[in-house]
Amino acid sequence: MTKPLPTGATIGILGGGQLGRMLSVAASRLGFKTCVFEPGGDCPASHVANYHFQASYDDTEALRKFGEAVDVITYEFENIPTSALDQLEALCEVRPNRRALTISQDRMNEKAFLQEIGLNVAPFMAVDTLEDMHKAVAEVGAPSILKTRTLGYDGKGQARLRDAGDADAAFAAMNGASAVLEGFVDFSCEISVIGARAADGQVACFDPGENVHRDGILDTTTVPASVPAALRTDAVLMAGRILNALDYVGVLGVELFVTPAGLIVNEIAPRVHNSGHWTQNGCVIDQFEQHIRAVAGWPLGDGSRHADVVMENLIGADMDKVPELSADPAVALHLYGKADAKTGRKMGHINRISPKT
Amino acid sequence: MTKPLPTGATIGILGGGQLGRMLSVAASRLGFKTCVFEPGGDCPASHVANYHFQASYDDTEALRKFGEAVDVITYEFENIPTSALDQLEALCEVRPNRRALTISQDRMNEKAFLQEIGLNVAPFMAVDTLEDMHKAVAEVGAPSILKTRTLGYDGKGQARLRDAGDADAAFAAMNGASAVLEGFVDFSCEISVIGARAADGQVACFDPGENVHRDGILDTTTVPASVPAALRTDAVLMAGRILNALDYVGVLGVELFVTPAGLIVNEIAPRVHNSGHWTQNGCVIDQFEQHIRAVAGWPLGDGSRHADVVMENLIGADMDKVPELSADPAVALHLYGKADAKTGRKMGHINRISPKT
Repeated sequence: MTKPLPTGATIGILGGGQLGRMLSVAASRLGFKTCVFEPGGDCPASHVANYHFQASYDDTEALRKFGEAVDVITYEFENIPTSALDQLEALCEVRPNRRALTISQDRMNEKAFLQEIGLNVAPFMAVDTLEDMHKAVAEVGAPSILKTRTLGYDGKGQARLRDAGDADAAFAAMNGASAVLEGFVDFSCEISVIGARAADGQVACFDPGENVHRDGILDTTTVPASVPAALRTDAVLMAGRILNALDYVGVLGVELFVTPAGLIVNEIAPRVHNSGHWTQNGCVIDQFEQHIRAVAGWPLGDGSRHADVVMENLIGADMDKVPELSADPAVALHLYGKADAKTGRKMGHINRISPKT
Repeated sequence: MTKPLPTGATIGILGGGQLGRMLSVAASRLGFKTCVFEPGGDCPASHVANYHFQASYDDTEALRKFGEAVDVITYEFENIPTSALDQLEALCEVRPNRRALTISQDRMNEKAFLQEIGLNVAPFMAVDTLEDMHKAVAEVGAPSILKTRTLGYDGKGQARLRDAGDADAAFAAMNGASAVLEGFVDFSCEISVIGARAADGQVACFDPGENVHRDGILDTTTVPASVPAALRTDAVLMAGRILNALDYVGVLGVELFVTPAGLIVNEIAPRVHNSGHWTQNGCVIDQFEQHIRAVAGWPLGDGSRHADVVMENLIGADMDKVPELSADPAVALHLYGKADAKTGRKMGHINRISPKT
């Protein structure tokens, strides 16, 4: 794929959640059609996409039809089964590329990659056996946190160690999954950068946002982040380094800890990111359109910020606040069309807008 | 319909063009599903709607299914056949109401209504026969413009009279359709107000924009309009008067001529309006979401403007400029996903953004 996709082309999206929904909307704004691949029915993205392939990731016939129906493939989540990717890549270009996926699917690969390109990460060690676990605690220390190498998100697949005595329980909590012990980082806050890289190497990053989590799930992102301007610049430069090292095409989320010794990369996500939802009301071109522009081979848009924004996730019963929020003039609502407001489920978000300071 | 629609409800939209497309996207942002009724296939709105009833407006079976599938009905064009409306109104509430449609479908009704509520319109007279035509030219004078009473848009169904000698030719151009002769208004510019009224009577208007037409089709809308602040306030108050007089629910476009003697109403459109597309990048809540909020019985959003904007329509071959426009950092692109860039066809628009002055 060397030429920009013409308007009217079809963009395939793996995953039909809220990120796929907002990607579909952004694609429609540029005149693209979208085709969503998602095993679940009545998924958020299917409401706004042209087509929905409702099939499992091991349905090779459905994957073939999907791969043949679209002009480029992107994704809203990083845990796409390898066999599905193998099949799709043979049919159609997948953006961002395989390397970004391979690295971000596995916490050990991710940390090794980040160290390799000269970025700071928390001390870490792989844990496959109870013996590894004890070695890792001796090396990395405690407090620390044990995380599965793959498939963890929103605090799932994690066990905290207050001290070395928690080691056996934490190991048991992994249920035999390969894990990584990460040293505790004494950080003052977490920030994230949403970076984008076009097919021709052009890079653009949105202003770093400051993230607050609640119960392991992102609660709010605030822009501007309350950190010195120099640190914000550092964060953007680090995101740029990651994008270039991966020869990345698309939008990437980079979470960073702010520590007295500078920035430490927590993790990267090879996709649009919850902490970038503020861009929908803070910028002319949001992270979703930026991603679509990149994967379509278009130039990136201008991501400069025109407002201060606090993004708040609406999780589970937070939906009860919608009537009140809908009457608040400073609030822009974004709801995902999910039927059941289950505990811990991301149902929507709001952006609270104020003039740029 | 006395209660606000809950998120997850389905909004029916009559018409599947670009306005329906952008209404669908706005509805999705609030968690609503959309169902589009449009005879044409592969229409712009069908790309982003949950369902597309592809059927003609005299297909009573399809209309019944549509009316039963949705929780409220709105429309993107005012020329909905009366028989279809009769059937749908019996099944489901239609917003904006029938009176707004009846008035705006017929230029004579519209002008009579506007005069009745004390607003200024151009001198006018109904023309059904050649005898009427000559009377009308004697009364209204020339230059003037003869327009069909119904179904005209974008300069279609109109004939200009430079002087009384053009009367017979203009009359012949109507092909027997009932028409209205409108006196020439010596205006310095045209402005328009996009007003919204909620089910509870709350009214909110966007800043008036200044419109320039080319070949009878809207070319650009600029905000702020280059008219004195007092005139902008007048325009907004006039829009408010129209909304209240019609007991209107939804967004309404009001076109006004700026003359030395003040504002003269050119026409009203009971729907989102091309001259309101700037709101997508100039406001947190755009005209499309404002309309959806109103028809869903929600409170209106804050429509205050945070940027200066020039909206430019992309018509026909203007699509050739898309690659260049996509690289311009001050430009937000909005493309409609139409397959053929025919001459005179609205294919998309751009909003050129600059800081608010």
